[in-house]
Amino acid sequence: MSADIRTAIADLLAEHAARIDEDRLEDWLGLFAEDCLYRVTTRENVRLGLPLSLILCEGKAMLRDRVAALRKANIFNIHSDRHLVSAIRYRGQRDGLHHVEANYAVFQTSQEGESRLFSVGAYHDAIRETDGGLVFVQKLVIPDTAAIPTLLATPL
Amino acid sequence: MSADIRTAIADLLAEHAARIDEDRLEDWLGLFAEDCLYRVTTRENVRLGLPLSLILCEGKAMLRDRVAALRKANIFNIHSDRHLVSAIRYRGQRDGLHHVEANYAVFQTSQEGESRLFSVGAYHDAIRETDGGLVFVQKLVIPDTAAIPTLLATPL
Amino acid sequence: MSADIRTAIADLLAEHAARIDEDRLEDWLGLFAEDCLYRVTTRENVRLGLPLSLILCEGKAMLRDRVAALRKANIFNIHSDRHLVSAIRYRGQRDGLHHVEANYAVFQTSQEGESRLFSVGAYHDAIRETDGGLVFVQKLVIPDTAAIPTLLATPL
Repeated sequence: MSADIRTAIADLLAEHAARIDEDRLEDWLGLFAEDCLYRVTTRENVRLGLPLSLILCEGKAMLRDRVAALRKANIFNIHSDRHLVSAIRYRGQRDGLHHVEANYAVFQTSQEGESRLFSVGAYHDAIRETDGGLVFVQKLVIPDTAAIPTLLATPL
Repeated sequence: MSADIRTAIADLLAEHAARIDEDRLEDWLGLFAEDCLYRVTTRENVRLGLPLSLILCEGKAMLRDRVAALRKANIFNIHSDRHLVSAIRYRGQRDGLHHVEANYAVFQTSQEGESRLFSVGAYHDAIRETDGGLVFVQKLVIPDTAAIPTLLATPL
Repeated sequence: MSADIRTAIADLLAEHAARIDEDRLEDWLGLFAEDCLYRVTTRENVRLGLPLSLILCEGKAMLRDRVAALRKANIFNIHSDRHLVSAIRYRGQRDGLHHVEANYAVFQTSQEGESRLFSVGAYHDAIRETDGGLVFVQKLVIPDTAAIPTLLATPL
C-alpha cells in the first residue's frame, strides 16, 4: 500500500466523521458506493459470528431512505455529534478492496448544552478506489454495547 | 500539499495539545504568530455567522496577557488537561496559509483524582510556514456547547 | 526519521491498542522486547521524579506472568476496553531507540452495557527496530490520576 493511499483512506474516515458531525448527512451519502453495506452490529454478535444487526442498510438506496427518515423525524435537531477516530489499521487488500479498521468515540451534546459520551467501538471498513476518489463498500460499525438508542439516531 | 507539510501540520497540532496538557503555557505561546487570532466561539455562533466569542485574543500580546493572568489566578493548579485530537482535514491553501480542521476532546482531572470529559468540538486553523517552522495565524476553537467555564480556563 | 518509520511507529501503537481492546493479551505480549520495561506510574510521580509505580514489569517474563494472572482472575470477562490514541509526537532517537509520546483515552464497557471513561493520560515509549518489526523496549503509561483500580486491570 502506498503512503498516498493510506493518506487518502485516513481522509475518507475523517470526512465520514466530519459530515455527520456537521449534520451534512446528504453529503455523507456521497462517501458510499451504490452497492454498499452499512451495518451497525455489536461486539458480541461479531464475536459469536451472528448476523444480527442494530441497523442494516443494503445498498445506497436504503441508506438514502434512512437519511430521509431522519430528516423527517428530527424536525428539531435534538443533539449534535462529535467523532474522535483513531489512526487506521490497514488490514490488507482483498477482492480489489482496501480493508481497514479504526476505533471511534462519539460524543453527543444536547440542546441544554451538556456533552457526554454516546458510543465507543470499532469500524471495520472495505474501501474501493474509483475515478471520483475512495468510497465505502462496507462500513461495519461495532459499538462496544448494544445499549444505545438507534431508532432515531444519526449514523455512527 | 506535500506529505512533509501534512506531517508538519499534524505535529503542530500535537505540540499545541501537549504544551497545554503539560502546563507549559509559555511554550505554547511559541506556536503562534505575532499577528495571530485566537478565538473560542460556539457551533451556534459559527452556524449563524455571529461574531460573538467566549474568548478573543487578537495578537500574541493579548495571548501572552491571558497566560500571565492564568498564572496569577491559578496559584493552586486546580486541574490538569488531556487532549485527544483527531486526524487533520486539509482544507486547502489560501493567502499563503494552510487551512486545516480537526476534532478535539479535552478531559480534565481534578486534584481529587477524577477524570471527566470537559469539552468536545472542532478546530479551524490557519497556519503559516516560517523559517522557524509552522505557526498558527488563526486558531478558531468551536466547542459543541457554550456551557463551559472560561474565565479561569486553560486554553482549549 | 523517515516517513516509513513514522508510519510503522503509528502502526505499533495502533496494534498495541487493538490487541488489548480485542482481549488478545497473549498477542499483545508479542509487541514487546524480551528486555522490556512496562511501567504504569502517575503524572505526579513523573513530575517529582519519583520512582513509584502502580504497575512495574521488568522484562517480558514478568509481563507474561501478569497476563497469565489476569486470565486466571478474570474467569468472567467483566468489562471490555476501547482505546483512542492521539497522533504520535516523535522525540528523537537515542541509544538506537525511537522515543515517542502520545495521549490516550481508554473507555470501558461493563457487562450491563454501560460505556464510560476509564483513564486518560500519556504514553512515553522507547521503540527498537528489529528484523521482525518494531517492538517496545519501554512503555511508560502515565495516567492523569492514580485513582484507578489496577489490581485486576487489563493493561493500559
